[in-house]
Amino acid sequence: MDPLLGIKVLAFDAYGTLFDVHSVVQLAEKMFPGKGLLLSQLWRTKQIEYMFIRSLMGKYIPHDQNTELALKYAMQFLGLSGGDQERKELMKAYEVLSPFGDVKHALEKLGHVKKSILSVGTPALIKSLVNHADLAHFFDELFSVDEVKIYKPHPLTYQLVMDKFGVEKDQIAFITSNYFDVVGAKAFGFKVIWVNRNHIVPDELTLKPDIELNSIDQLPIIIQ
Amino acid sequence: MDPLLGIKVLAFDAYGTLFDVHSVVQLAEKMFPGKGLLLSQLWRTKQIEYMFIRSLMGKYIPHDQNTELALKYAMQFLGLSGGDQERKELMKAYEVLSPFGDVKHALEKLGHVKKSILSVGTPALIKSLVNHADLAHFFDELFSVDEVKIYKPHPLTYQLVMDKFGVEKDQIAFITSNYFDVVGAKAFGFKVIWVNRNHIVPDELTLKPDIELNSIDQLPIIIQ
Repeated sequence: MDPLLGIKVLAFDAYGTLFDVHSVVQLAEKMFPGKGLLLSQLWRTKQIEYMFIRSLMGKYIPHDQNTELALKYAMQFLGLSGGDQERKELMKAYEVLSPFGDVKHALEKLGHVKKSILSVGTPALIKSLVNHADLAHFFDELFSVDEVKIYKPHPLTYQLVMDKFGVEKDQIAFITSNYFDVVGAKAFGFKVIWVNRNHIVPDELTLKPDIELNSIDQLPIIIQ
Repeated sequence: MDPLLGIKVLAFDAYGTLFDVHSVVQLAEKMFPGKGLLLSQLWRTKQIEYMFIRSLMGKYIPHDQNTELALKYAMQFLGLSGGDQERKELMKAYEVLSPFGDVKHALEKLGHVKKSILSVGTPALIKSLVNHADLAHFFDELFSVDEVKIYKPHPLTYQLVMDKFGVEKDQIAFITSNYFDVVGAKAFGFKVIWVNRNHIVPDELTLKPDIELNSIDQLPIIIQ
């Protein structure tokens, strides 16, 4: 695999890219046996859909509020009993997600470039995630879309990384597992690495990533 | 049910509100027995998702192109054989959708207000739909988001109706079955009527319609 040359800054997406939401699926399954996976999937789908809809309408609300509303909908839609207590527990689980197994090892080998996170999470939530996973010392900056009050893939969100580091767009490599984030970052002008751990079919959104990896393990080979 | 007072203009959404996409589901089922419904659902989900993503990225493409890309993805994702020929036939079916059974009768009784369509479809497609269904003479205006190159629920799309008729926002009633369109039109300032034919659970997007109907039949009672 050819390396990406001239990269000075890495910007990582958080949910699904660095942090594994699988523990939330497990908790949901424990609460609602046989329906946990379905609940998690509908929750995630609605969470993303609501981010898009609110951004387009110009009615941003912070990610934790948006996520809780998506969960409320998903539980109602599936006719699941329970309410406030279960919702609170599931939301709590979101604050202490574990990083994927390949993350720490890769970050340790990437000492020669600046590293950052650009997430839809609130500043408090991103901070809590990296602290809980003992990853804070790896990152130079943590960016939240909350600063610009609109969600990815709007260009203003990617601009946050540009503004801080003062490098060219193509000196920034953006790493994400979410395909809407791949095309958003690519349209903005970043080099883009798609982490496709589950070998999913890419969306038909015309733009493509520069590189596709099936693990973050391979990142130190790409970024030299 | 209390009527909405002071309404001078009606603006209807097209897909799923005036026009029934069920004929496309039937064709898909004929082509891919046992998988037609799944294909139609994934196609529709991706079609909407791609509209949102492209609008947020500032990379609008016309609805027919977007729809065909969504169909291509859905067929690939489901591992369905066939390709160009099946795709072309399904796309063709989209141009000749039938109106719901309750539409014509309701329009006939609404002679006292201006009537329009605001659709994500291209101008050519909207025209073809209303002509094929013999509904053209009911409408004073047909608006396409193609004029502003961004999809609903962005405020610029609803502004198209405002600009043309020169009335106040709350003198316009917007009628749609799509919930993202309910909240978009409501956020813009229209009176909103949600046509919820299938009694689905409303999304948790804070804003609510002014009135919920389960058929367009009831519209002449509301608009007096």
